[in-house]
Amino acid sequence: MSKGPAKAKRGIPSKVDNFNEWYPFIVEASDLVDKRYPIKGMDVWRPYGWKTMRLIDSLTHSEMDRTEHEEVNFPLLIPENLLEKENALVARLKRAREEGVNPDDLRDDEEEGGFKKEVYWVKHAGENELDIPMFLRPTSETAMYTMFPLWIRSHKDLPLKIYQMVNTFRYETKQTRSFIRVREIHFFEAHTAHADEQSATDQITQDLQIVDNLMEQLCLPIIKAKRPVWDTFPGAWYTIGIDAIMPNGRTLQVASCHHYRDQWAKAFDITYEDKNAKQQFVHQTTYGMSERLLGAVVGMHGDDNGLIMPPAIAPYQIVICPMIRKNAEVDTVAESHRIAELLRKSGLRVKVDSRDIHAGQKYYDWEIKGVPLRLDIGPRDMAQGTVFAALRTGGKEPLATDNIVELCQNKLSDVAKELRRRSMEHITNVVVPLPKLSNNDGVWSLDGQIVDGKIYEIAFAGSDADAEVIERHTGLTFLGEATEAYESEKSCHMTRKMTKRRVILAKTY
Amino acid sequence: MSKGPAKAKRGIPSKVDNFNEWYPFIVEASDLVDKRYPIKGMDVWRPYGWKTMRLIDSLTHSEMDRTEHEEVNFPLLIPENLLEKENALVARLKRAREEGVNPDDLRDDEEEGGFKKEVYWVKHAGENELDIPMFLRPTSETAMYTMFPLWIRSHKDLPLKIYQMVNTFRYETKQTRSFIRVREIHFFEAHTAHADEQSATDQITQDLQIVDNLMEQLCLPIIKAKRPVWDTFPGAWYTIGIDAIMPNGRTLQVASCHHYRDQWAKAFDITYEDKNAKQQFVHQTTYGMSERLLGAVVGMHGDDNGLIMPPAIAPYQIVICPMIRKNAEVDTVAESHRIAELLRKSGLRVKVDSRDIHAGQKYYDWEIKGVPLRLDIGPRDMAQGTVFAALRTGGKEPLATDNIVELCQNKLSDVAKELRRRSMEHITNVVVPLPKLSNNDGVWSLDGQIVDGKIYEIAFAGSDADAEVIERHTGLTFLGEATEAYESEKSCHMTRKMTKRRVILAKTY
Repeated sequence: MSKGPAKAKRGIPSKVDNFNEWYPFIVEASDLVDKRYPIKGMDVWRPYGWKTMRLIDSLTHSEMDRTEHEEVNFPLLIPENLLEKENALVARLKRAREEGVNPDDLRDDEEEGGFKKEVYWVKHAGENELDIPMFLRPTSETAMYTMFPLWIRSHKDLPLKIYQMVNTFRYETKQTRSFIRVREIHFFEAHTAHADEQSATDQITQDLQIVDNLMEQLCLPIIKAKRPVWDTFPGAWYTIGIDAIMPNGRTLQVASCHHYRDQWAKAFDITYEDKNAKQQFVHQTTYGMSERLLGAVVGMHGDDNGLIMPPAIAPYQIVICPMIRKNAEVDTVAESHRIAELLRKSGLRVKVDSRDIHAGQKYYDWEIKGVPLRLDIGPRDMAQGTVFAALRTGGKEPLATDNIVELCQNKLSDVAKELRRRSMEHITNVVVPLPKLSNNDGVWSLDGQIVDGKIYEIAFAGSDADAEVIERHTGLTFLGEATEAYESEKSCHMTRKMTKRRVILAKTY
Repeated sequence: MSKGPAKAKRGIPSKVDNFNEWYPFIVEASDLVDKRYPIKGMDVWRPYGWKTMRLIDSLTHSEMDRTEHEEVNFPLLIPENLLEKENALVARLKRAREEGVNPDDLRDDEEEGGFKKEVYWVKHAGENELDIPMFLRPTSETAMYTMFPLWIRSHKDLPLKIYQMVNTFRYETKQTRSFIRVREIHFFEAHTAHADEQSATDQITQDLQIVDNLMEQLCLPIIKAKRPVWDTFPGAWYTIGIDAIMPNGRTLQVASCHHYRDQWAKAFDITYEDKNAKQQFVHQTTYGMSERLLGAVVGMHGDDNGLIMPPAIAPYQIVICPMIRKNAEVDTVAESHRIAELLRKSGLRVKVDSRDIHAGQKYYDWEIKGVPLRLDIGPRDMAQGTVFAALRTGGKEPLATDNIVELCQNKLSDVAKELRRRSMEHITNVVVPLPKLSNNDGVWSLDGQIVDGKIYEIAFAGSDADAEVIERHTGLTFLGEATEAYESEKSCHMTRKMTKRRVILAKTY
């Protein structure tokens, strides 16, 4: 292995006291990425980071197989005129929303949407200026929906369910942060087309189930919330955001699902012949995720000794460290490799670290990389027919070599359970009721403090104007209405109407 | 599955008579790609094509694991100044070669190399013009070698062996052709750094072994040849090109290995401290392959009924077609699924096609996609305890259901063997000795015809000037000196000196 950036051996910043220094330190010190590439916001994925990301991807691939999505790969470059088509659609939908009218009654706006400001442009190739400028995809709606009319002709072609994992680009002007806010993004996007609105709605339900399956494996605490209208993706009918809760109480959107109804179909003329030989517009959805999933794993699970990898995505689930003693009567290295082979045969990812260095240095190296389970093998352990196991989440005990595979599987399962328990505890601690807002003679005041590190929930059945009042007086952002509602009706924070609607407010990344 | 481009049901052009029409027809008709994306030379990978490419990639991943290369992922964009560094190096090496001097004695040239003419430029982002223009990687030498000095410090960091599979870009002005000449390229590149020249040379030997392993699986006929000096990659000491022989006798470079010696290390200041605490430049190699591998598979193995997929990369190795008879006493569909599950448990990729359509249509669909083995199951077969097997390379016979897994594995192995046999036969037929060149009073003449569809070999120990005479009088390109030399010495085609050197000449893609 090549060297990582120079690192202070025990100089890891405190995560609890200083998350904003801990995070950038740890992503480099654990060899996930190297930030010294000469373009800001574009990191080099080092082998350890890329292996982890590919393991996350393979969980996604499995879910896509299970749900019969097919993988495609679209070109990176998109001609400018397709962006203009998208801009016109978005501007029209926005105007319809503002004016409270049916978007179909409006014509495409000439005004430019916001996307032009967020993309990288290719206007030159070789020594030529291109006739038609192209841009690097930020996502692939326009590229894909140009092809959909060629692929969809009849109801027999529906549903169409495709996805891709590709690099996307965003001209980010805010401060960048590895995995969380970058300019080249490792991206997953699923796009589906359906015969009607209900089938598209069912797809969103399936997407949210996939999210739950993935989050179970990543052991992440999340909130799924239907975004308020003003925070819906401009081309969407509605958006469900999936937010991970970071240790500092800020939320990080790691995935989102959009129901497009037939809005894009109308803009891109995507129709099919139904069973009665009538042309109909398709209804569409998208589901996106990105390398932010890894950012959430790093941020949520790590501690002051480094990363803690959920076993499902750990490049090495188990590291075996033989104690190297000169003139020892038993060969701990050979024993380590024998056990490693046993474990590998059961599908576990195992590394033997037989470097002849101080044990403390080895422990440090694998702790910072977050390997869930370490097995130490010394001559005394061998004599007793055991290995000594240390869980990255805490706890040490000897394991009988005779039954090593099953015991290790149990210990890995224990690590995952402990990470999930911490996540649940984190949510329970962090999400609290919002202090009351009182109105005295038209002046609003908050009956309490908004505390850093907390996320707030309210029963809410109010208007957009009510929401604006809350955002202004709390400095918080409406994440939206959680898919998990209250079990019984409560009084709305603003209107006092009874409702089960549970709205989440937070400071966001 | 969504619809592909409209296709004439039996309108496949003849491969032998008209390869140039057959190839573009078949890549779309078999659903590998869709060429109707609005940018020329950038195809959409459809699910069937992308699955095949990913299976080729997974063979490569296995070889990389076996040889302890680690996967990384570098940014797509590269700042302009790095290209200038490369250009200066390349220009200096070229001048040194022309002047016959040591490149270390020359200073970097100011003149521009050729790379600027081949890349796409990003000079704008959002509404801004960028301070430093960037380009889309054509390959990643400059991006990677900027980081190598940060990663390599001591001899303990060597060898450094990394690879990535990424999209690369070339501003192609010639006519494009799916997989073979495209503007966005699905690319593999391995980069290594070593302590000395010999270790780098050993790496090239390993690379060529990897090539052999992959070609065995893809069943492709290839020639490995050390390129002549004038066709060596400009930054390399020497280049070994790996050329697939297409059915029309033209060669297609599908891979290449470059020995860089310490030339790039000197340009990018990549040094290490050796065991005597002395700073030394590293020696480097690269090994590249691309989606051209799939182009060669399509071109070499296909026939007038469509693709023929080598079993190692067939998305479906076996398709099972139950005969659907109304009111039949036995359930052929259930039996098909039962057999499919048996086969899948042994790791085979199997599809059951239970569509209620004419059997001929099913056969056509799976033949054009090149599925190596088809199993038909009818009521009579079931009564006899057999299935009826049809090999895509020809031949039909009943297989006993009792022993179906082993029998299918054998049949797939037979298909691969037959493809390899055809490949060997193709090389034997196509590669012929070059007609003699006679010199009468300083005028050269060729004692024979250069025939379309043939590749020529000669014993050669001549000079660059001799080579130029041959190229001019034959219209052929020197592929270079084959790694497989003659077994015994022969007389050089030009100088009559005795040599084992076997040089290959061909028309190339």
